Amino acid sequence: MGKSQRIIETCFSPALYEPDLHSGSIVIVIDIFRASSAICTAFSNGASSIIPVAGVDEAREYKAKGYLVAAERDGFVLDFADFGNSPFNFTKERVDGKTIVYSTTNGTGIIKLASLAYKIAIGSFLNITALEKWLVAQDKNVMLFCAGWKNRFNLEDSIFAGALADRLMKNGNYATFCDSTLAALDLWSLAKPDLRGYIEKVAQRSRLRDKKLDDCIDFCLTTDYSGNIPVLKDGILTSLIC
Amino acid sequence: MGKSQRIIETCFSPALYEPDLHSGSIVIVIDIFRASSAICTAFSNGASSIIPVAGVDEAREYKAKGYLVAAERDGFVLDFADFGNSPFNFTKERVDGKTIVYSTTNGTGIIKLASLAYKIAIGSFLNITALEKWLVAQDKNVMLFCAGWKNRFNLEDSIFAGALADRLMKNGNYATFCDSTLAALDLWSLAKPDLRGYIEKVAQRSRLRDKKLDDCIDFCLTTDYSGNIPVLKDGILTSLIC
Repeated sequence: MGKSQRIIETCFSPALYEPDLHSGSIVIVIDIFRASSAICTAFSNGASSIIPVAGVDEAREYKAKGYLVAAERDGFVLDFADFGNSPFNFTKERVDGKTIVYSTTNGTGIIKLASLAYKIAIGSFLNITALEKWLVAQDKNVMLFCAGWKNRFNLEDSIFAGALADRLMKNGNYATFCDSTLAALDLWSLAKPDLRGYIEKVAQRSRLRDKKLDDCIDFCLTTDYSGNIPVLKDGILTSLIC
Repeated sequence: MGKSQRIIETCFSPALYEPDLHSGSIVIVIDIFRASSAICTAFSNGASSIIPVAGVDEAREYKAKGYLVAAERDGFVLDFADFGNSPFNFTKERVDGKTIVYSTTNGTGIIKLASLAYKIAIGSFLNITALEKWLVAQDKNVMLFCAGWKNRFNLEDSIFAGALADRLMKNGNYATFCDSTLAALDLWSLAKPDLRGYIEKVAQRSRLRDKKLDDCIDFCLTTDYSGNIPVLKDGILTSLIC
């Protein structure tokens, strides 16, 4: 291939991220339940761009300017918003050709942390093959940045990191020397034979069930629904198509 | 048994520790390569107490007062110290009946973080059965606090957390709802059939090998060398015997 061997690292929580170490890397932001999956769905259904914003006030201002706004807090759609953060809300009818403002405190914090990176892209099971192909074609190290939950380690993001690392390392051009990536690979090896069964035990599964927001779990674990790679540029996500 | 069901949680790095959440818990500090293992060995060989200190200057002051001092930085024994932090240094001839000053920046930071806990104890494979029996006899939640490496996740501490959680949960009096504990249990399930083979891949294994400090790896993975439970009181570790 003519490319040098590249390194994969994994970070299990924003509280563990070391910005200076990944300034030349492609950072993949992973928030399986549900931000990454919702963003991939939006592009798959024709959204032209997504503007991630941190605060409720900022989202409200965009709404006043006429933007389509997706905004939730603790699972509840904010009163001024067009809809919440479930992937099912980002239908073709609603998002095709549109710019969407997406309110996410956690996500914008992560994007800020990773701002020194060479590139920031969004990863989910929905676009895993597209992402794999795109990364293999780049000559960059990869940082798999799990959003976690309130700074805590979570299983679903870690398992996805393992699934993607597994694919990238199989072609021999990627290696890892990082215990987090090794753990993610091992966890993925256990989850892979029955991903949906495995996911039943994770904490976020119960949280979403308690709020009756778990209807999208099965969808978020679907492989290759989307050929889009959401990439951040100047604070706005647009999509590369692989 | 008459005890209520207790909760196990796991923290993969000091950077992820939430002190307020564990104020009523027994915190088990885990630093398999090598601090936890060295401390358990010292008590097993008759040490009467261990004073953990953070700074080199503080360790030097204790040395001037006539204390036995174990002190290393990056694997090198400090010139004024009696010996370094390998468990093999804490021989019966050296430590029996003595108070040892143990210099550990990471360890003292963790002890400070966990200071709100009900109790702080030291865990390693060397004292795992003693620890299990002691914990089962308490009516407290347990926090498995992995020291990690420079705030990063590491495999060897996580695997030990899984091994201990596995034992505690088998008796039915402990449960977990924490993804970190679930991951630790899964990693342990993979490591258990060939612990020494599994450990070959971990990052700290290579770091210790590079510094020729890996002679104690095999020993640190030995189960039940010690019946001691090092417990912290007023900043000093002494040992309960189970």
